[in-house]
Amino acid sequence: MPNPTAAMLVIGDEILSGRTRDTNTHFLAGELTRHGIALAEARVVPDDHAVIVAAVNALRASHDTVFTSGGIGPTHDDITADAIAAAFGVRISKRADAMALLDAHYQRSGMEFNDARQRMARIPDGAALIDNPISIAPGFTLGNVHVMAGVPTIFQAMVASVLPTLTGGAPLLSQTLRVDRGEGEVAGPFGVLAAEFPDLSMGSYPFTQNGAFGTNLVIRGTDPSRLHAAMTRLASLFPA
Amino acid sequence: MPNPTAAMLVIGDEILSGRTRDTNTHFLAGELTRHGIALAEARVVPDDHAVIVAAVNALRASHDTVFTSGGIGPTHDDITADAIAAAFGVRISKRADAMALLDAHYQRSGMEFNDARQRMARIPDGAALIDNPISIAPGFTLGNVHVMAGVPTIFQAMVASVLPTLTGGAPLLSQTLRVDRGEGEVAGPFGVLAAEFPDLSMGSYPFTQNGAFGTNLVIRGTDPSRLHAAMTRLASLFPA
Repeated sequence: MPNPTAAMLVIGDEILSGRTRDTNTHFLAGELTRHGIALAEARVVPDDHAVIVAAVNALRASHDTVFTSGGIGPTHDDITADAIAAAFGVRISKRADAMALLDAHYQRSGMEFNDARQRMARIPDGAALIDNPISIAPGFTLGNVHVMAGVPTIFQAMVASVLPTLTGGAPLLSQTLRVDRGEGEVAGPFGVLAAEFPDLSMGSYPFTQNGAFGTNLVIRGTDPSRLHAAMTRLASLFPA
Repeated sequence: MPNPTAAMLVIGDEILSGRTRDTNTHFLAGELTRHGIALAEARVVPDDHAVIVAAVNALRASHDTVFTSGGIGPTHDDITADAIAAAFGVRISKRADAMALLDAHYQRSGMEFNDARQRMARIPDGAALIDNPISIAPGFTLGNVHVMAGVPTIFQAMVASVLPTLTGGAPLLSQTLRVDRGEGEVAGPFGVLAAEFPDLSMGSYPFTQNGAFGTNLVIRGTDPSRLHAAMTRLASLFPA
């Protein structure tokens, strides 16, 4: 059985304007790979209700799991929760469980639980909360969509609490052979090898170091014995 | 007239597996913003012919300009040029102009212009070449799609040669006010201000520094006088 697939949806004008560099996709990619889930697509969209709704519906229909990051804070530009509710056609309101969590948090810290902060308790009907150990305001899971914060430390904590609940496949393993030759020189035999192992994925990534060309040859797959067999053949093609 | 829009399509298994961090989208975002083109969407897709074709066709239909990065090297997993040709329904072959460029380059450097390297001369019919001052193998422009290398230095050089050919709008300006208060405290008045200036885009980005909460309030727009007016009002709402 092929590994389950996931998609990542990054929401936020600040990524598309170049103000902020998205680091959540790269973090999620590594975590999913270790968990045996293939990240099959990532998208970045602006803070635009209709665009978010369309992207969520496209991605949740074509992948087993969808992760979103961004747009669940207290300000007017945080519109993700409402867009997710619209995508699923469900109601959204300040929910008692989320209100209780936030109320207790702001009482403890002596800050006012004002209207803006209460917006973070708006959760679509039928969603399960995702724990936020850092700043309490929860994410949520609705259907196969996990809605998480954009702040990297909070995003990472939420991934850590969601990932164990997902069924993964065999972890995607990868091995790399570094050769001191240009990509164009290794491409022929490497392509022949790739054709011999259609169950593995092979990629080549050129680099330059101290003015010399080199290539990292990467083989990926879920079966350790097949990976070993291919790496052995690869090493014999390009002896050190 | 609203600014023209662009989309970015990052192609490569290595990004989705978490092996490589995509830096091209962030670079492009900043360049486009300065050039007055709005980056409206970014996607990352795997080295999969059908997926690339579908993404290219979706993005070129909905945006003024599309940029792609990755998959134009000499190895078997470099399938971008063929996918672009398929997306446009045109033929692809080793083109004389690209062959001449590469042949001269490999003669100069004393390297064999072998079959794998000749793959990099495969250019769809009707495309215009994009100069690659670093490793010569060209990118190309077909319709509104600019196909560029994934290696960041080459990607950046190709963006530098393509960008002056594109009609931009007024540059998107942005100003930031840093306030020493949490996002939930500034959200109310900030949202009211945003509603007063519907022609500007306002976003808030929380941070913690030395254990204290703060928020960067960012206002973006193309009209300097409107931006100045909004920033003046913002500074009066949150005096230092």
